[in-house]
Amino acid sequence: MRIGVLGGGQLGRMLALAGYPLGLTFRFLDPSPEACAGQVGELLVGPFEDKGLLERFAQGLDLVTYEFENVPVAAARFLEALLPVYPPPKALEVAQDRLLEKTFFRGLGVPTPPFHPVDRLPDLEEGLKHVGLPALLKTRRGGYDGKGQALVRSWGEAEAAFHALGGKGLILEGFVPFDRELSILAVRGTTGEVAFYPLVENRHQGGILRLSLAPAPGASEALGKKAEGYARKALEALGYVGVLALEFFQVGEELLFNEMAPRVHNSGHWTIEGAETSQFQNHLRALLGLPLGSTAPRGHSAMVNLIGLRPDFQEVLKVPGAHLHWYGKAVRPGRKVGHITLRRDSREALEEALPLVLQLAQIRYSGE
Amino acid sequence: MRIGVLGGGQLGRMLALAGYPLGLTFRFLDPSPEACAGQVGELLVGPFEDKGLLERFAQGLDLVTYEFENVPVAAARFLEALLPVYPPPKALEVAQDRLLEKTFFRGLGVPTPPFHPVDRLPDLEEGLKHVGLPALLKTRRGGYDGKGQALVRSWGEAEAAFHALGGKGLILEGFVPFDRELSILAVRGTTGEVAFYPLVENRHQGGILRLSLAPAPGASEALGKKAEGYARKALEALGYVGVLALEFFQVGEELLFNEMAPRVHNSGHWTIEGAETSQFQNHLRALLGLPLGSTAPRGHSAMVNLIGLRPDFQEVLKVPGAHLHWYGKAVRPGRKVGHITLRRDSREALEEALPLVLQLAQIRYSGE
Repeated sequence: MRIGVLGGGQLGRMLALAGYPLGLTFRFLDPSPEACAGQVGELLVGPFEDKGLLERFAQGLDLVTYEFENVPVAAARFLEALLPVYPPPKALEVAQDRLLEKTFFRGLGVPTPPFHPVDRLPDLEEGLKHVGLPALLKTRRGGYDGKGQALVRSWGEAEAAFHALGGKGLILEGFVPFDRELSILAVRGTTGEVAFYPLVENRHQGGILRLSLAPAPGASEALGKKAEGYARKALEALGYVGVLALEFFQVGEELLFNEMAPRVHNSGHWTIEGAETSQFQNHLRALLGLPLGSTAPRGHSAMVNLIGLRPDFQEVLKVPGAHLHWYGKAVRPGRKVGHITLRRDSREALEEALPLVLQLAQIRYSGE
Repeated sequence: MRIGVLGGGQLGRMLALAGYPLGLTFRFLDPSPEACAGQVGELLVGPFEDKGLLERFAQGLDLVTYEFENVPVAAARFLEALLPVYPPPKALEVAQDRLLEKTFFRGLGVPTPPFHPVDRLPDLEEGLKHVGLPALLKTRRGGYDGKGQALVRSWGEAEAAFHALGGKGLILEGFVPFDRELSILAVRGTTGEVAFYPLVENRHQGGILRLSLAPAPGASEALGKKAEGYARKALEALGYVGVLALEFFQVGEELLFNEMAPRVHNSGHWTIEGAETSQFQNHLRALLGLPLGSTAPRGHSAMVNLIGLRPDFQEVLKVPGAHLHWYGKAVRPGRKVGHITLRRDSREALEEALPLVLQLAQIRYSGE
């Protein structure tokens, strides 16, 4: 079986590494000739908008998936006329628009922070009445890793942000004083089979994920079941196939939906060593209609992102249970160039070794 | 770093899959254009004897290793003049000649079955006096997977085998009524750091490995230490770098050396899921002078080879804890085309699920 992947970054690269043992081969499509998945599989280079290129890309493939949620929906729909495309392009569409996304989840009965669409200055005023201050003003489309958004604490700040963000196509969201951020990775096969990884705790800095702890320390079973219930509703409503990541704010024993990613997700990288079956292999199993692998965690894991720096490999690999994933990308400030997963049998052993790994990744983090 | 690999079979393929997360890239050299490592890395095709090809192969590489122990020693030595070649070609030389190999280990004080070189008929007679009957007559070079050898129970059978095997370059070995076959995987880095995986029990059928159980059920700690001691002597005597596999016959609490493989080994495939660090990644870490990863097992594993058949992937992946490795090779009788590793937290759970996996691999095996 030959799998096509829209996008050729590290997620595509790790998909291929998980898929080769199933006898699969891979072709990537990416606008950049430097796309790091090209080091481990065939890479076609060019814009996602080029229909001739999409046709060449599709030639000889059995199915197509994506590893990047800003793939133009039109490209996914164009390919869908030629061969199966999973997850369904509908999921891309929902994920690409914060307003559509929050409306969709609210429609499923999943709690979200209050939100309001903003396309004119009066909308902003009305929105602020509705969601209160402080609030977050965000572009509906195209934002990622903390870009395209502003925290506003006054009408003046809100108005300035409104103009800075383009004055339309915005969403105003209530700022929720949450306890922590959690995510769940759910997976659904073409057969309808569904599985869930345990809740993961995520820590961001500057809008970029720095650290995931899996399973999320101290998360109650009830909270896990709640997240699974929400994810199941979304999987079913979308006729979803593949891995779906949902991010939540935890407030006491409540979960407020924040955003979704219709693909394998950074907060699931720990599953390579820390779960019986990785998110990457389960994504592929789902697409192929193969039985899903066990999502049970093996011990306790911390996934630490390497952002804009190359740590000393010697020092990293010296740490017992540390697994290095270097993506083969050039190091640039703010760029995700690798990650380290630290896996230990007990939470205590993990906590003991974690500060050293965080130091190697130059991440400041004070535990609880 | 760019790694060259002599040989492009499944071992090379799995080396690459373990090396990409370290940011490595791979180039393979193999006589066959069908070599399955070519699906996951650059493949040069041609004979190992072609010096022009070896020069092109070496271009731009940082070091060379091999995944096939019948690589001509001359090719390894030729490359050694251009760049580092690990494990040392000396180890290839020893491994390619059963007489040299057994003499080498006996010289280290490692027990072996009795053996005797046979180059003429009188040698055979003298050898049989020395080793007794039954005995094994083998070619010194080129045998693998049970080929190039005969079990002989009488003078008549010995004489017939002598002629059938070419009448020279042979070795006669005493047939040892052993309890079981065990192997140990040892690894030594360029830094001199050494690590050992636990003893593994191996079951063969028709001279081909069918099943490995790891850690070897019921192996005493003392037996493990004995194997480690033997392996350590060999690593040091050879100035070895990389993974070295040693196969033994267990007789009570004794170990008799049978053969070595100067490379990653089929009896170590379980380490991908069943150990904290796989043999493939530790081989690469050793070559690069990186700290070795933990060799601690995670639970209990059984590795089942897929020989000349493609099982129903659905059925295999349905088994909890079963991990499929399909090598992307055409299925031919007697050919290793994949393996399944079954990993469970307890030996009991493993024993419970194993019969089903053996059945899917069409392996008949009655447990103890």
